[in-house]
Amino acid sequence: MIEDKIEELGLKIPDAPKPLAAYIPALIVDKLIFTSGQLPLEKGILNFKGKLGAEISDEEGRKAAEICALNCLSVIKGVVDDLDRIEQVVKLTVFINSANGFIGQPKIANGASELIGKIFGEKGKHVRSAVGVNELPLNSPIEIEMIVRVK
Amino acid sequence: MIEDKIEELGLKIPDAPKPLAAYIPALIVDKLIFTSGQLPLEKGILNFKGKLGAEISDEEGRKAAEICALNCLSVIKGVVDDLDRIEQVVKLTVFINSANGFIGQPKIANGASELIGKIFGEKGKHVRSAVGVNELPLNSPIEIEMIVRVK
Amino acid sequence: MIEDKIEELGLKIPDAPKPLAAYIPALIVDKLIFTSGQLPLEKGILNFKGKLGAEISDEEGRKAAEICALNCLSVIKGVVDDLDRIEQVVKLTVFINSANGFIGQPKIANGASELIGKIFGEKGKHVRSAVGVNELPLNSPIEIEMIVRVK
Repeated sequence: MIEDKIEELGLKIPDAPKPLAAYIPALIVDKLIFTSGQLPLEKGILNFKGKLGAEISDEEGRKAAEICALNCLSVIKGVVDDLDRIEQVVKLTVFINSANGFIGQPKIANGASELIGKIFGEKGKHVRSAVGVNELPLNSPIEIEMIVRVK
Repeated sequence: MIEDKIEELGLKIPDAPKPLAAYIPALIVDKLIFTSGQLPLEKGILNFKGKLGAEISDEEGRKAAEICALNCLSVIKGVVDDLDRIEQVVKLTVFINSANGFIGQPKIANGASELIGKIFGEKGKHVRSAVGVNELPLNSPIEIEMIVRVK
Repeated sequence: MIEDKIEELGLKIPDAPKPLAAYIPALIVDKLIFTSGQLPLEKGILNFKGKLGAEISDEEGRKAAEICALNCLSVIKGVVDDLDRIEQVVKLTVFINSANGFIGQPKIANGASELIGKIFGEKGKHVRSAVGVNELPLNSPIEIEMIVRVK
């Protein structure tokens, strides 16, 4: 059902991105699934590179945030198999690679939050922090980690 | 009782700040309440803007951290109605908008931690991370997220 | 057993670093232990200072990440007494003090993740976020917070 909803939006849960290092992409503890920080990788390639307020436009940033959110769902699917087991999206933490003077982190992070809302409805109402940082792995514009609760 | 304590300190739980975007201010999952990152908004207005080590003095930063902490309590109150249901303040994550060379994040974050200590006593003994970042939403000097456990 | 493993690696759980401020180093809530952000302090002294991509080499950064991880274990030990009670290392959040243009956060954070893997084996498989920031307390190159689950 959730994956049908994602398809209706013209999107698709990607294959899970490989971690860049000595850790795992997602983990369940009691009923909470924590993801590792996800970059906007598509088939292993980072199609967006650089900072908001410089190389990356707001529109590109919002799109990159959507891809991060889908990658979070992808690695969660790797843990629970079926995204319909998600009872509640709990939290997104959104790190945004920000040029000096860029203070529009919330509207960029909305790319992820609004997509989660469209996919999950009430179950998608999450808390969120959005902060600017001066560098991210691979010169990614965004990194997002997610916590969800499953049934 | 907790709100009486806050009043004794000459403070007041503000009305809950509105989220800047497509998310909710706080959420309970099992017995944990997670807040979204809170800025030092007062009645919707950001009275402090800029970076520690530049436009914002240490004393202003500490005050801004206090306001963030009160805003966290405000959005938690929106979930549980009564702050006396808080059994333990678990964690503060404090992001501090830092000019190059500013390394006094702990003393600024203490504005929040010490207030929580005064309000909650033993129940207020929390863990904390304080990090410097180069930009925050709306040019806020500080953003704080909180986790508490309720009975 | 876990401490024997740490000794076999030529390492030792240090005495718990003192918090720099008004908070506690670690806290248990239900079965999760959360740590405060740990700096690479050794006997109270920060032997590494500065940014990756500038004053701090990659090798030094990896070593500093290891020390942060050991300090996390030290403060967890202060809560549970025996590190063998750790059932699962859940999450590391790794903040890396990054000079402009430094995008190698994952390989630095691996200093911590690989050490946790060597110490805990399967129980050490954790999720992780690694982000660059422009300043950290005391000019530390790294700050790491950890979540573990205990039996």
